[in-house]
Amino acid sequence: MAKKLTKRSENYSQWYNELVVRADLAENSAVRGSMVIKPYGYALWEKMQRVLDDKFKETGHENAYFPLFIPKSFLSKEADHVEGFAKECAVVTHYRLKNDPEKGIVVDPEAKLEEELIVRPTSETIIWDTYRKWIQSYRDLPLLINQWANVVRWEMRTRLFLRTAEFLWQEGHTAHATMQEAEKEAQTMLKVYADFVENFMGVPVLQGVKSPNERFAGAVETYCIEALMQDGKALQAGTSHFLGQNFAKAFDVKFLSKENKLEYVWATSWGVSTRLIGALIMSHSDDNGLVLPPKLAPIQVVIVPIYRNEDQFAAISKKVEKIVKALKNRGISVKYDNRDTFKPGYKFNEWELKGVPVRLAIGPRDLENGTIEVARRDTLEKEMLQMEDIDEKVENLLEQIQQNIFQKALDFREEFTFKVDTWPDFKERIEKGGFVWAHWDGTPETEQKIKDETKATIRLIPLEQDNESGNCIYTGKPSKGRVVFAKSY
Amino acid sequence: MAKKLTKRSENYSQWYNELVVRADLAENSAVRGSMVIKPYGYALWEKMQRVLDDKFKETGHENAYFPLFIPKSFLSKEADHVEGFAKECAVVTHYRLKNDPEKGIVVDPEAKLEEELIVRPTSETIIWDTYRKWIQSYRDLPLLINQWANVVRWEMRTRLFLRTAEFLWQEGHTAHATMQEAEKEAQTMLKVYADFVENFMGVPVLQGVKSPNERFAGAVETYCIEALMQDGKALQAGTSHFLGQNFAKAFDVKFLSKENKLEYVWATSWGVSTRLIGALIMSHSDDNGLVLPPKLAPIQVVIVPIYRNEDQFAAISKKVEKIVKALKNRGISVKYDNRDTFKPGYKFNEWELKGVPVRLAIGPRDLENGTIEVARRDTLEKEMLQMEDIDEKVENLLEQIQQNIFQKALDFREEFTFKVDTWPDFKERIEKGGFVWAHWDGTPETEQKIKDETKATIRLIPLEQDNESGNCIYTGKPSKGRVVFAKSY
Repeated sequence: MAKKLTKRSENYSQWYNELVVRADLAENSAVRGSMVIKPYGYALWEKMQRVLDDKFKETGHENAYFPLFIPKSFLSKEADHVEGFAKECAVVTHYRLKNDPEKGIVVDPEAKLEEELIVRPTSETIIWDTYRKWIQSYRDLPLLINQWANVVRWEMRTRLFLRTAEFLWQEGHTAHATMQEAEKEAQTMLKVYADFVENFMGVPVLQGVKSPNERFAGAVETYCIEALMQDGKALQAGTSHFLGQNFAKAFDVKFLSKENKLEYVWATSWGVSTRLIGALIMSHSDDNGLVLPPKLAPIQVVIVPIYRNEDQFAAISKKVEKIVKALKNRGISVKYDNRDTFKPGYKFNEWELKGVPVRLAIGPRDLENGTIEVARRDTLEKEMLQMEDIDEKVENLLEQIQQNIFQKALDFREEFTFKVDTWPDFKERIEKGGFVWAHWDGTPETEQKIKDETKATIRLIPLEQDNESGNCIYTGKPSKGRVVFAKSY
Repeated sequence: MAKKLTKRSENYSQWYNELVVRADLAENSAVRGSMVIKPYGYALWEKMQRVLDDKFKETGHENAYFPLFIPKSFLSKEADHVEGFAKECAVVTHYRLKNDPEKGIVVDPEAKLEEELIVRPTSETIIWDTYRKWIQSYRDLPLLINQWANVVRWEMRTRLFLRTAEFLWQEGHTAHATMQEAEKEAQTMLKVYADFVENFMGVPVLQGVKSPNERFAGAVETYCIEALMQDGKALQAGTSHFLGQNFAKAFDVKFLSKENKLEYVWATSWGVSTRLIGALIMSHSDDNGLVLPPKLAPIQVVIVPIYRNEDQFAAISKKVEKIVKALKNRGISVKYDNRDTFKPGYKFNEWELKGVPVRLAIGPRDLENGTIEVARRDTLEKEMLQMEDIDEKVENLLEQIQQNIFQKALDFREEFTFKVDTWPDFKERIEKGGFVWAHWDGTPETEQKIKDETKATIRLIPLEQDNESGNCIYTGKPSKGRVVFAKSY
């Protein structure tokens, strides 16, 4: 604990890596690219899951569970999909080990699978193979299903939460009778994600659609939300895909319409993952550690007693007991850090590192004066308050903090959002980071060239375009509206 | 829906297989041995998870998440463990596919892993490899962690919920400073399981320890709960293992004790899985379909309107709205089945098949008379009640049903529990099913011979033995107390 974190300004990437481990969120495992999500990190994920799951259910979705393994042939059925997902994936080829007298435990060559199984990188194929059995008539539609699961994508360069071989996520897969309904569903779920990321995570997002280059493999349209991290790089925080009839055609899923015609089913899929934890960390945290939004913090309030002897400790603990009860009655999660093995200064640092939104400290003099020291994590400000109605004051403070960290992140994004109209300006600006709104001629070729020269990609084409026409920064050809470029995670 | 279920008395096994699919709980997938858990089945699992998760947290445990993949070498580190788990498992050997101009998508031979990865059959090894980094001193203990996860065991003969290649479960893995504390933990978690299975699932269980033959691979002692299914076969409903220092030694996990000595850590692990859903079905359900315990039923009450015209439907719906609200206020989950595409009789059958504990039916005459028809699923009894305070009456009825199905299952178990003292009696009794309490000489050899001749195994050695000495039914050698034999799932 004594050692300070690397500063963001010194080495942002190292700051992030250190913080994730030292705040007890996650760590690398013995398995290349796979992480261990530690209890504190998992508690955060559970809070996120609970909120999202409630939102999915409110919007009419049910949870289900589909197999981890996907037959290799399934991946090939949707032409674009296979291009995107059949590359770097974990392949199960055998189903047995055996004991070799010389080499120890070895793969049994006789237990080779007839068809290899792929550990799911995403579940469209196995799910649409199942939907064929579930959907016969318009009465079976819409089918609104979500799955919480682990998925595997064999990434070569991994970083905790941001890019790992295995990660946790949810994937919604819906089936509809009409194109309009499916498109509306994809948009509705984008709004659900945007609402969650902004109002719970406190991270402002832009909403839009992906350019063809960045579209999900197999989608007709990919809706996305994009957030800006403190180092000026963008992070895709969630995607919702309108899949058209691509998967229905690939897996032969037809339904009898009200008009008694056999038609292909329309589809969407949408997902967010443990990657959101990376976005959360990089949006709000500072050189002292995590800054967690109150609505998702596993511990919202920590109370640290300051004492010199057992009598003082007993008197403080008695008072704290009442405060804990009052806070819990308001639905606030609170931890009384009564460990006698650590000093208050150590505890302050630890809870600061772990991003607990509000810290209360009580000493003997506070008991005499009826006061309590209240420290907020987001601004690091401390103030001495009267103990009376402290639960109500803390509740209000938590709301203020939630709003403040969103506002701070929004101000940051506004400051790092630029309109650029020339190629030299574009290159210079992209290099420094931020969202760059610029004109583009609409072709994949130009997008690719811009990426090759600057590493920037089109993060999104805004849902609400300004209808300001102009000329492509790269080719000078006409453009009907600006799109958002950035370097990204 | 028209077709009746196969009767239990005709073909128990077929009855089970049909029921799981027709009640929309689960179905087989395109991947051999892997099931799809359908929304209704998953809703049941979610209810079970929520109750168990709360109990784990109440007893001081935290959730975390460890990698899906286990390096092959890890499995070999604990000698007994490898015997039990390195046999039938999914082995990942490659990490990439590629497009072959002739054969299509094939495994890229150049992307072969240096060390094969095993899809976790259970996580002791990867977790204890991690605990080595987390545990240095007695201050780091106890470590009380649980994981909700999918696991894979390559079973040759699979049955939905009971035995599938992939299944969902929770696995607790705890680390302790002393043997006593670890043993106590293993016993505590057994009690948690017994409490859940009896008081929520309504399934009575025997508690005991496994004989060495049936012990978990790597455990010093395996505590278990065993339930009796309606066909007279036993089902292991949960296990809790005292692992001694076996995994600490295999993965070199030591801690500095209060006395400043370096010692190996003591361990437990414990788990229950989606197999519990199989136990639930086979304990209570009947020839009309599922019978679900109210405390776990995804839908506790269904309301079916009986009407001939729109006016009647509108009047009934208005009344139902109030009932739904009153029931929800009591925390009761209720569904108003207002589909106009199906007749009441069809709906009655469907909800009976799906095991909804209470069905309310309201027709125009009920509105006039202020009455409502109340049908309970467990006994199939119907009665006409006054509509006044119907929410309270239903709440009481749900409690009665919960108690009744437990009592019914307990009565069944008592009826099918036998004390047997001779080998001919034993063979005859085992053939007919039930729990058979008999004397055994305590040797694995005898247990194996009994199994070879009768297919019966020792389900458990009771925690509370009767201290009644006797002679082994097979060898005639002395025994200090009866153990429980049965054929099992």
